[in-house]
Amino acid sequence: MANSRSGDKLLDRVVRILESFTATEPRLSIAEIADRAGLPAASAYRLVDDLASQGLLLREDGGVRLGIRLWELANRASAARDLRQIALPYLEDLNQLLRQHTQLSVLHQDEVLILERLSRPGAAANQAHVAGRLPVHRTSMGMVLLAYAPAHVLSGYLARHEEAVVERHGDIRRVLAEIRRTGHATFDGFLDDTTTGAAAPLLDRSGHAVAAMGVVVPRGSDALPAVVMALMTAARGASRDLQAMGDPRISH
Amino acid sequence: MANSRSGDKLLDRVVRILESFTATEPRLSIAEIADRAGLPAASAYRLVDDLASQGLLLREDGGVRLGIRLWELANRASAARDLRQIALPYLEDLNQLLRQHTQLSVLHQDEVLILERLSRPGAAANQAHVAGRLPVHRTSMGMVLLAYAPAHVLSGYLARHEEAVVERHGDIRRVLAEIRRTGHATFDGFLDDTTTGAAAPLLDRSGHAVAAMGVVVPRGSDALPAVVMALMTAARGASRDLQAMGDPRISH
Repeated sequence: MANSRSGDKLLDRVVRILESFTATEPRLSIAEIADRAGLPAASAYRLVDDLASQGLLLREDGGVRLGIRLWELANRASAARDLRQIALPYLEDLNQLLRQHTQLSVLHQDEVLILERLSRPGAAANQAHVAGRLPVHRTSMGMVLLAYAPAHVLSGYLARHEEAVVERHGDIRRVLAEIRRTGHATFDGFLDDTTTGAAAPLLDRSGHAVAAMGVVVPRGSDALPAVVMALMTAARGASRDLQAMGDPRISH
Repeated sequence: MANSRSGDKLLDRVVRILESFTATEPRLSIAEIADRAGLPAASAYRLVDDLASQGLLLREDGGVRLGIRLWELANRASAARDLRQIALPYLEDLNQLLRQHTQLSVLHQDEVLILERLSRPGAAANQAHVAGRLPVHRTSMGMVLLAYAPAHVLSGYLARHEEAVVERHGDIRRVLAEIRRTGHATFDGFLDDTTTGAAAPLLDRSGHAVAAMGVVVPRGSDALPAVVMALMTAARGASRDLQAMGDPRISH
């Protein structure tokens, strides 16, 4: 048990070190890593060394980065990869036809986790980054994921975030029922005043959302009805492929 | 030091567990994990539990999978992601124009590691998978990466793989010089008798390959010269963007 206990602690420290790297700060000094991971400098130094010798981190002139081996191990067998592979041709279709950013996301630990994002030079502003997170109740993708979530996932989320959700949406169950009735969600200016987000669900065989596809358009765009129709069409195609593959699933 | 030593061992076991999942076998039982990672069943069970509680693994009805948290940590700040982001619009252009599989790869630990692959229904056969590996001297991407590698990387590779390389290519230095002279590599039927691979390098400011872009076409295709020209054009565009970004680099 002593072994398990120290193992658990070490893993915890390793995860905290990996967590200290972000999209905007992908390269850190050991002092920064120690600070962010809440570790004494000496342990941070030793652990970075151990992780680098496994290829999980990479020591460069300018500091430390995540290693390519970590990327490889995480990507070659992940459910995220399967989902992305299925959705990518449909995302590309939307990106080409609509000339706007298109994205794929899942509900994970009460947030929207972006699995893929195809950008478009000159398209509307967009806050999403691959492997980034967005708040569920403030994105159209999040609202779609919630509307089509299994009952226990929805009630758990609402219990944990009731105040914020009600403040934003009022009668949330009515809002979600309307999303299910129309098969999509559109919301204006949730994360950015100048844009409208639209989203549609990728459904498994039981009718629950495995993922959501979203498009961001300039607010007030006349093209919104056409964008929504394209999005729902693409999401249906991807849902069919997903169901044929036997429902790759991401835990909530 | 005792701590460092046991930490090192635990990390080693963790990496072996993560390594046991592959693209073709993404879901394993604990017995399979123990077997592949060379661990006693009890330690495998305990470590899988620890990893699952961190979200790095996911326990499902059918067995164990890599967790979405691992994917997120590995992707949000990795050099692979930067490279992919830069190259993706060019890969999409090629995929649309040529209607063939297009891919992006780097040289890593003496192998070609695939960072991205855009597929095309009905296109030529292709052995590459995202986060999969291919042999350097048997792929056009690998030969391009070698031709444009820094001198110490090339000589190290040749020293370690001389026999296989010479058997396949004879005077390898002449073959690589020819690749550098023409700016691309094409090889017939290396991995598949029915296809030809073509590749061009993404170069950093010092003229070394950071990555390679590749296209696979049916062997004997009349379109090969046009495919090569499109590929070289796309690779130059991506190289320019890469250099403007300050050379995201993947260790060799």
